[in-house]
Order: sequence, then C-alpha cells, then structure tokens
Amino acid sequence: MAQENQNNNLLQTVGYQFQTTTTTYNEKDAALYALSIGASEDPLEQSDLQYTYELAPSGFHPFPTFAVTFPLQTLEQIGSIPGQKLNLIEVLHGEHYLELSRPLPAEAAITSRAEISQVYDKGSGALIIVDITSTDQNGERIAFNQASLFIRGRGNFGGERGPSSRFESLPDRPADVLLNEKTAGSQALFYRLTSGDRNPLHADMRFSALLGYPKPILHGLCTYGYAARALLKTFGAKDPLRFKSLKARFSSHIFPGETIQTEMWQESTTRILFRSRVTERDEIILSNGIFTLQPQ
Amino acid sequence: MAQENQNNNLLQTVGYQFQTTTTTYNEKDAALYALSIGASEDPLEQSDLQYTYELAPSGFHPFPTFAVTFPLQTLEQIGSIPGQKLNLIEVLHGEHYLELSRPLPAEAAITSRAEISQVYDKGSGALIIVDITSTDQNGERIAFNQASLFIRGRGNFGGERGPSSRFESLPDRPADVLLNEKTAGSQALFYRLTSGDRNPLHADMRFSALLGYPKPILHGLCTYGYAARALLKTFGAKDPLRFKSLKARFSSHIFPGETIQTEMWQESTTRILFRSRVTERDEIILSNGIFTLQPQ
Repeated sequence: MAQENQNNNLLQTVGYQFQTTTTTYNEKDAALYALSIGASEDPLEQSDLQYTYELAPSGFHPFPTFAVTFPLQTLEQIGSIPGQKLNLIEVLHGEHYLELSRPLPAEAAITSRAEISQVYDKGSGALIIVDITSTDQNGERIAFNQASLFIRGRGNFGGERGPSSRFESLPDRPADVLLNEKTAGSQALFYRLTSGDRNPLHADMRFSALLGYPKPILHGLCTYGYAARALLKTFGAKDPLRFKSLKARFSSHIFPGETIQTEMWQESTTRILFRSRVTERDEIILSNGIFTLQPQ
Repeated sequence: MAQENQNNNLLQTVGYQFQTTTTTYNEKDAALYALSIGASEDPLEQSDLQYTYELAPSGFHPFPTFAVTFPLQTLEQIGSIPGQKLNLIEVLHGEHYLELSRPLPAEAAITSRAEISQVYDKGSGALIIVDITSTDQNGERIAFNQASLFIRGRGNFGGERGPSSRFESLPDRPADVLLNEKTAGSQALFYRLTSGDRNPLHADMRFSALLGYPKPILHGLCTYGYAARALLKTFGAKDPLRFKSLKARFSSHIFPGETIQTEMWQESTTRILFRSRVTERDEIILSNGIFTLQPQ
C-alpha cells in the first residue's frame, strides 16, 4: 500500500500499454449499431439501408463511427493501471478523435492496442490521452482512436498544462447547414447494448442521481454518431468510403428523447467544422468538431 | 418430378414433423427484442427496465412475446416439405397463438419441435396449422406457439373447410382502455434483426413492390409485441410472470412510422379481448385478439 501511494504520480503512466483486446463483429452487430445512432428513421430513405440491411442494393457497409466501439473494452482498463487506483467514476470522456485507414469490412475480428501517449496537469484534474490502433485479422490497420480522458481531482501533480483547450473558432456566419434529429426515449438503452458501453449512468436512475443528473443521460459517443451521420449525409453524399476523420469535444449532456441539432460550416470540400446542440435546452453538447473527408 | 406432382395433396402433410431447431439467447438478445417492440420509450418509465436492462432493480425478464421468435427458423422449413413445393412468397401468416408454460429465463438454449396439426381447404388457399413446442436445455417446456399459415392459390384439394373464421364478437361498448404508440421509421429494420425474421418484405422496396406495397411493411409479430406490452401494462401490472397466452389474427399491414392503437375490453380479471388499429389509415391490423393472464 505504501508503495502504491508513492507511485501515484500520473506522469509515470506515459507510455503505459494496455492489454491488447480482441472483438469480433458481424453484419447484424454493425446494423444494430447504425440503428442505435438513428440510421434510417425514414422508411423511404433507402440510402441509409447500406448501414442497416445486409442485402442493401448498394452493398452493406458498417457506418464508419462503428469503429469508436472497438476500443471500449480496452479503455475500461484505465481503472486497473498499477499503482494509480483510478476510479472509473472519476473519469470523464473529454474528447474523441477517430480516423479510419480504410472502410470497415462487413465483418471482422478486430485487435486493439492502446497506450497512454500524453498526460497533462489541468489543476482541477489530470488529462490522460490514450491512443488506440485497431487492426483486422490480417494485421492491417483499420482505425485509430484517440480518447482524451479527464480524471477529476487528480491534478496538481507537477505536470505540464498541455495545449490550451480554447474552442475552435467558428466562421462568423450562421451555419451553412443544420440538421435536427429527435432521439428516442430508449436511445441510451439501445446504444449501450450495441456499443458495449454498459456504464449504468446511461440506464439507471440510481447511478445518474449519484452523478447529479435527474435521469440517465445519452452516451456522448452516441451523439457523436448522430453528428457523423449528419455530416456524411450533407457533405459526403452518404458515401461511407469518403469518411476520413472526426473529432469533437463532449461539452455537455443530452437526455434520451431530446433533439440533437448539428450545425455545420464547410471550410473546404474535405474539411467541415461543426457543433451539436440539444434544442430543448439550447445547450452545446458537442464542440470543437472537425470532420474530414477523403478527396473524391 | 411426376412423383412430386402426385404427392402435392396438402392433406398428406398432416402430422408432418419439421426438423428440430435449437436457438440460444442471452440478456442482450432479449433486451434488444424488447426495445424493438417499443419498450421504454419513456426514460422515466423505469418499470420497463426489467425487459431492457440486465441490472434492473426488479430483476431482468425477457418480455414474454420474445418466445414467438423461438420457432421462426423452424417455420422457414415450410418451403421444403417433400413433394409440396410451397413457395415462401405464397405463405401468409394468418394468426398466431402463444402460450407460456413458465416465465422466460434470462438466457437459455431453446429447442423447438414443430408439426403440422391441421390442414384446411379454404378454396382460395390452404390453411396449415403448425404447432411448435419449445423446451429449454433441461427439457422443460417453456412455450407453445401455434402459427396459422395461409397458402395462397393452394386450395380446392378436397379437404375440410375447418372452423369458421368469424370475428370474435366484441362487447357492445367502447373499449375500456385504448393505448396509442407511434412506431419508428426504422422499426422493421430493427425488428428483423432482433427476431431473426429477415424476410426482405420488411426492408426492401424491391420486394415490397413485388407484393403490391408502396414500401416495406412492419412485421405482424412486431405489432403483436406492441399489443402484448399494452395489455400487460394495463391489466397485468406489467408483471411478466402473469402473462399466460395471447392470440391474434393479422388482418392488415402497418408501415413503420405509423401509430398502433390497441383497444382493450376486459372480460374478467384474467381474460381481455383486444384489437389493434393503424390510426393514420384507420384500419384494423390485429383482430380476434384474446389475452389471458395467470390468476394472481
């Protein structure tokens, strides 16, 4: 015990490698994921079928942000870094970056390797950056995820403050396009099963109350998926092969049943800035959003 | 070929036994099924959590009508009865009866044994009644399903006409209770994955057009699940242990995104008559409905 206390300087975790995890998925898993981020609400919107129907006329493709679910099991190991005693309830997912190396296959066995690349001292807490590379059964790289995890109450350990967390400056004009989508009351119950993120915060009033919420909140990465659908639909002709990367900060929460409004500003044919808002409470839930497309 | 033509008198199929099928499910499968029949639309409706959340305060229970999915693989064998050349596209699911012997376990390996119990000659087609008994891994009986399948264009083979198909007479008063629930545009895409009934009629405009529909229709058994939820909620205190049996006729179709209205008439504390209607087109979609409860 004495040794653990001496070890709890978070700087020592830079370079820490998580245990490799493997996850397999098939078309059904990928289709349920797409439905859980709102795909195909309109039965005549047959182009969304490519994400939800294994015999779709245009072929079946997992929706690109399905790749954010690959390292979820890996990230749960944050609670078992030797000597650190990090409590999962102290961990906030602050930002998430996803970059695809190539389109997701219809089914695969995915191996994810994660390591802590940076640790910053933000005073009120520590910011731990985890880089995760996911490869398929042939060892080919498919996805790179970077999760920024804020650990409440674990700052002031003498580390660097790191890059400023200023908001990305948005163009001084109204959004070029905005899209509203209402989520279902059961959205979080659905998303937790398709993503594998079963944190009871998203299902159980007993847990959400502990964290100060009047009821369970939707997963930030579910909202992230909604934003990705809006962006790819608007600027990528709904072509999943054009998805390159997506970054966003989780600014605030949304309750299942509320409406996500995604505001988008086109900077070039391959780069779009965005943010998302919960319309019922007019609060920004995703900020600093950057979406990039593969050139056509 | 000549031999097959001589054999195609459907009366010869009475007593025909399908190949036994086995299906396994776990809490995730059962929870996704419950969500696909509309469970927990209201995030504050925490009592529905028992069907959708494995750590629900009141314990986890698969929703009772999950048992209608057990024999779906079995029923697909209707197309391969020797000498009959039944085309699945000619088969209409006319009525369905489900009776539970005991509450569904949270996970199980289910074996289903099916046989044709009756065949009737309705003139315009044949009515084939299939009885399916499902047992768990210990051989204990869990569910009895009876599917009435109407085979278009296969009547006039000299069989009995069978019991009259008059509508159950409903009480001469407005429904005691009626409940409206709007389905999602993606409801059929969701239900096909959770039930295993992947008939393209429920996903693919190319197939629904072949059958004369302007777009894919919702599964009758999905509507059946909605009705069961409405009935158990209203008359069974949402207690899945009180579900005994449910019968209904599939009278007409509903499109995903439309609203199901279930009208209920209580005959006794354990017997309720019901029908369901699509409100947007004011058409009856489930008729002859009878729901029975275990006595308290």
